[in-house]
Amino acid sequence: MKKIAILTGGGDAPGLNAVIRAAVKTAIYEYGCEVIGVRNGYDGFIEEEGIVPLEIKDVRGILPRGGTILGTVNRGNPYARRIIRDGKEVTIDVSDEIIKGIERLKVDALLVLGGDGTLHIAHELSQKGAPVIGVPKTIDNDIGGTERTFGFDTAVNTATEAIDKLHTTAESHHRVMVLELMGRDAGFIALHAGIAGGSDVILIPEIPFKYATVLAKVSKRVERGYKFSILAVSEGAKSVDGEQVFSRSGDEIYTPRLGGIGQKVGEFIELNGFETRVTVLGHLQRGGIPTPYDRWLATRYGAAAVRLAATGKFDRMVALREAKVTDISLEEALAVPKRVNVNSDAVLTARNMGISFGDQ
Amino acid sequence: MKKIAILTGGGDAPGLNAVIRAAVKTAIYEYGCEVIGVRNGYDGFIEEEGIVPLEIKDVRGILPRGGTILGTVNRGNPYARRIIRDGKEVTIDVSDEIIKGIERLKVDALLVLGGDGTLHIAHELSQKGAPVIGVPKTIDNDIGGTERTFGFDTAVNTATEAIDKLHTTAESHHRVMVLELMGRDAGFIALHAGIAGGSDVILIPEIPFKYATVLAKVSKRVERGYKFSILAVSEGAKSVDGEQVFSRSGDEIYTPRLGGIGQKVGEFIELNGFETRVTVLGHLQRGGIPTPYDRWLATRYGAAAVRLAATGKFDRMVALREAKVTDISLEEALAVPKRVNVNSDAVLTARNMGISFGDQ
Amino acid sequence: MKKIAILTGGGDAPGLNAVIRAAVKTAIYEYGCEVIGVRNGYDGFIEEEGIVPLEIKDVRGILPRGGTILGTVNRGNPYARRIIRDGKEVTIDVSDEIIKGIERLKVDALLVLGGDGTLHIAHELSQKGAPVIGVPKTIDNDIGGTERTFGFDTAVNTATEAIDKLHTTAESHHRVMVLELMGRDAGFIALHAGIAGGSDVILIPEIPFKYATVLAKVSKRVERGYKFSILAVSEGAKSVDGEQVFSRSGDEIYTPRLGGIGQKVGEFIELNGFETRVTVLGHLQRGGIPTPYDRWLATRYGAAAVRLAATGKFDRMVALREAKVTDISLEEALAVPKRVNVNSDAVLTARNMGISFGDQ
Amino acid sequence: MKKIAILTGGGDAPGLNAVIRAAVKTAIYEYGCEVIGVRNGYDGFIEEEGIVPLEIKDVRGILPRGGTILGTVNRGNPYARRIIRDGKEVTIDVSDEIIKGIERLKVDALLVLGGDGTLHIAHELSQKGAPVIGVPKTIDNDIGGTERTFGFDTAVNTATEAIDKLHTTAESHHRVMVLELMGRDAGFIALHAGIAGGSDVILIPEIPFKYATVLAKVSKRVERGYKFSILAVSEGAKSVDGEQVFSRSGDEIYTPRLGGIGQKVGEFIELNGFETRVTVLGHLQRGGIPTPYDRWLATRYGAAAVRLAATGKFDRMVALREAKVTDISLEEALAVPKRVNVNSDAVLTARNMGISFGDQ
Repeated sequence: MKKIAILTGGGDAPGLNAVIRAAVKTAIYEYGCEVIGVRNGYDGFIEEEGIVPLEIKDVRGILPRGGTILGTVNRGNPYARRIIRDGKEVTIDVSDEIIKGIERLKVDALLVLGGDGTLHIAHELSQKGAPVIGVPKTIDNDIGGTERTFGFDTAVNTATEAIDKLHTTAESHHRVMVLELMGRDAGFIALHAGIAGGSDVILIPEIPFKYATVLAKVSKRVERGYKFSILAVSEGAKSVDGEQVFSRSGDEIYTPRLGGIGQKVGEFIELNGFETRVTVLGHLQRGGIPTPYDRWLATRYGAAAVRLAATGKFDRMVALREAKVTDISLEEALAVPKRVNVNSDAVLTARNMGISFGDQ
Repeated sequence: MKKIAILTGGGDAPGLNAVIRAAVKTAIYEYGCEVIGVRNGYDGFIEEEGIVPLEIKDVRGILPRGGTILGTVNRGNPYARRIIRDGKEVTIDVSDEIIKGIERLKVDALLVLGGDGTLHIAHELSQKGAPVIGVPKTIDNDIGGTERTFGFDTAVNTATEAIDKLHTTAESHHRVMVLELMGRDAGFIALHAGIAGGSDVILIPEIPFKYATVLAKVSKRVERGYKFSILAVSEGAKSVDGEQVFSRSGDEIYTPRLGGIGQKVGEFIELNGFETRVTVLGHLQRGGIPTPYDRWLATRYGAAAVRLAATGKFDRMVALREAKVTDISLEEALAVPKRVNVNSDAVLTARNMGISFGDQ
Repeated sequence: MKKIAILTGGGDAPGLNAVIRAAVKTAIYEYGCEVIGVRNGYDGFIEEEGIVPLEIKDVRGILPRGGTILGTVNRGNPYARRIIRDGKEVTIDVSDEIIKGIERLKVDALLVLGGDGTLHIAHELSQKGAPVIGVPKTIDNDIGGTERTFGFDTAVNTATEAIDKLHTTAESHHRVMVLELMGRDAGFIALHAGIAGGSDVILIPEIPFKYATVLAKVSKRVERGYKFSILAVSEGAKSVDGEQVFSRSGDEIYTPRLGGIGQKVGEFIELNGFETRVTVLGHLQRGGIPTPYDRWLATRYGAAAVRLAATGKFDRMVALREAKVTDISLEEALAVPKRVNVNSDAVLTARNMGISFGDQ
Repeated sequence: MKKIAILTGGGDAPGLNAVIRAAVKTAIYEYGCEVIGVRNGYDGFIEEEGIVPLEIKDVRGILPRGGTILGTVNRGNPYARRIIRDGKEVTIDVSDEIIKGIERLKVDALLVLGGDGTLHIAHELSQKGAPVIGVPKTIDNDIGGTERTFGFDTAVNTATEAIDKLHTTAESHHRVMVLELMGRDAGFIALHAGIAGGSDVILIPEIPFKYATVLAKVSKRVERGYKFSILAVSEGAKSVDGEQVFSRSGDEIYTPRLGGIGQKVGEFIELNGFETRVTVLGHLQRGGIPTPYDRWLATRYGAAAVRLAATGKFDRMVALREAKVTDISLEEALAVPKRVNVNSDAVLTARNMGISFGDQ
């Protein structure tokens, strides 16, 4: 193994730099390898100035920094590159060019740090001969075959701190506070932060909710003397009622204003007589200094990925299982995306706490 | 001085509990006074269960806690109480009942912890004989006659941490990040957090901006190789162009979507070709553990307010001047609300840093 | 199941209150049980005022608080109670009194939140008929049979933040910074924080070190242009050389000053020509707001312990395995204390990073 | 003004990089100046590789970083340089060489970021013609003529967080916790953190204490039912009794073990029957991410120093007065070092809170 390339794809996640640093150090110290960085996702292989050398000095001090020194793009699928041709937007396949770039650079192993989408592409490029090793990255924790992705712990921390902050205002002002969190298909952030922050309602994509049930929970708390409530809502939470929002009387229907599900839930509760505030945490969840846990996991992933590359096994992904870093095939990892298990002890615990998922 | 009452009014601000604790301890330890708490603002004087005793044990452990153990209401003006009478909402004046409540309880001094609105009412009640002492509270730092209000430092911390978090994502993704911060009439939070967080544009109510100037700044940065920008925007920032948002070509006019000024600025920049994300920090700025500075200032205010009460001087407010806690008349404090001095060294420093206020 | 008792024993650990809250809520909401708290460890069963009722209102707001509302004692072994009798200290066995206390109170299940020592006692009391359920608590993460104990993540956070803080001063001042961390027999805190904080040397009880090897690492860094080094040292780290500290010339032997191993290592390096500072983090690692992870894990443990009690199975401990909360016998949990596996991917990763364990 | 030099001296303080960044940006953007950095204090002028260019790219991203990119030395007095000559250590005066270095480099203004010692040297060099501008830096806040130095707010934050962490353990374990903080001659850190953290005793250099008075406070708290106490102790606190530590009986005298005043106070309390733990916070107070306040103040200082240089006035220092950044002569600033005013409202407030200074 003489040359390793590293690329980062998809949304930002705290810990990317820690993986890069660990991979560079392991490659250079342990294997005497050359390391190159691919800038802004797969595009780096076909763009000018897309490749940068990575030496020890380039990774100094980056361990606690969010973001990625390599840059990233959200929609960088080489199988469906959108370009403007003759004034019209068309979709073309540039995957062969990527492969050529990898071959031309004589890359012995390509570490791909990404989420579901980026890893799917890695797996496909692997079919065309690219020596790919995946490193699972997503703040949503929704990649199969691994107990944990890096970035998730930091996102949960940011979300929980937000709940902590809303708590005092909610209590002092007797208000309902709705916090919309990331999670389009998987509700892990809302579930973890909701439990860790002591929220009263958690709405996640895996458990469809009823507006009326959520309202009943808020009302019941008021009856018991708790004039405030905290709702942690995944952006991908769905109601079984669809999009309609009903007034107190129940027979008037309002068209919900623009906005996500957090806005709709908040509006519904406000319409039914409880002063409500909605906060959308948004990109704050992707940034910041990675937590010690994420730096720890990311560093182990980065080193393990290089050790795996040295064994010559590709089309695989490093993964955490039973608290150990091991590796699995990308095919297995991507077969079934991870979702909140609605029968897990975690969900059961939330119910034990009196937290409502809006379903019963 | 035998009996002191404490009430908290207006929006939540970190440090309220620290003031309450300091006042209770000082009153009991130093003056052997009885202390009572007035719940949910001025209303506590006329509502059942509106008064609670405050002893040392009641303030144990509350120093680092956000919110207020007394509760608060946002719109609790006794001169303009909105009630439902004969099925219609009418406005009545209940200030005489408040005065009667104060007299009936034989309160020797009433500490009012509040912002501009709450303190105005205190000053008016003072004219009717209430022995009022004000304690300046607002996360906006916009009360006259004092160099600082408690709650502000915590809000600036929360805002700066948010800018820090957005920074890494902005840089990794080559994006424009707009952060809308509190500050309807005064831009202190955006100014302080914008400088402390290293933002590129700061828009505040005191300096009207031009959309085109903001866009020019973002564009100029891209030319210089910085593909991202961070904008810190007060919710009360105003453009000299009014509400219209123009497209890149300059001749098409879009109706801005619902949302605040942060949304409008973000939409404008996106329309002109830069990928943009908008985050509204909202109530997160009001909550959380008060910073050591805010606990320190709030504690000094609480103790000083009781010492001031003991001198028998009322209709006054404790204030910070030249790093010392002193007191001024409420009239003076309320005469001119504090605004960002556009000629101050702070604004000049921001300009020195290359930060644009969107005005030139 | 009609009555559950909860007690906390041993050193403080962040998350104890989260377990108590979860157990109380689950017991009351799910099982309609009465819950009592045992104050200050096992002693509560035989002391006056040793038992307090625990209702929902008693656990309000305690989720994010460090410490334990029940109090704890470090050396509360009922099998070896030290008392003063006839002017002399003697050791007596009061375990039967504890059992009588449990029976008299008609406790159906006793949740014991503690570390190795406290759980050993629980297991022994179990042999005498006490309906014991253990919850593994230790900031050291050294309890067998579970992948994680609560309190550990918070301790690692505190330790990593300390390394982060020392980093800038070390670098600016060209100094060697030694940070002594908790861990008498297990080096998990130093290992995790050392990797997460990017330290250069990690000394743990599981890997005996040589003074000369540590010095060689520091010297080699200076040769490479890094004039500073950070050493993360478990309090239980042991040198193969014993306690002697040698000067630069190698033939002079100094008697080390009083102090722990961190002090000795620091003195040795200073004696050999590098300006060095030693910080002992001490009890700061036991306190503070539990991290979201610890609150999440503690809450799951608390709820699971009550659910386990309801099944009537005792002499068991809740445990985390493959990211799921399950339960194992106390016997199994206590059979072999957990230590850092010196062949684990984590230790290997540290070596890959160029971190020295002082052994080779 | 064509060329500005910047140097940092003395102990590390959070915010140094923020000053450097602000000065570089202001010098380049506003005045088109060249900027050079002097490495490792005054020595940089006479050492090889002691001077580095400072451009905009060199200060990118350093705003939130602790330490100084220029490096610093603690004992870099050019008037008393210790060197080895003929095998013996002798002290020589190299100040003329420094002056020559400044002249040779054609430096129009030299910004000196330092504390008392570093600024004294700057003032002396000024007498020899060096165009010096001081920027007050010290975590101790003990420089005269300015209401605040940068670095102090961050140190107080670190100290207060430590008190917060000790609080929960103290309370759960019924212990006395002694926290030794920085402050050899000025007790500002202990005073501010002690009040902000809610400590029970504050010992500072400005108020000599009696061991017996401290013990009486701890005992009195136990009588009142508070079995724990928190003591915030400046490293420079002095007892009127001198160094002796007495046992409970009062007639036995123990020789205190090695260690600072915190250790002695802790040992004394332990000897008198209260379980006690001592933590020495040490260098943790110098490091870490500067707080938003320190970044804000440091940025204003850096910009103001360059603007001051442009006016051609030297031998002066930027200073904060009445919340505005202005400037004063170095002579005035250094005339009287700042100490805690024992009659200030802050000290009075602490006494109101029931906090003991050990003096009465």
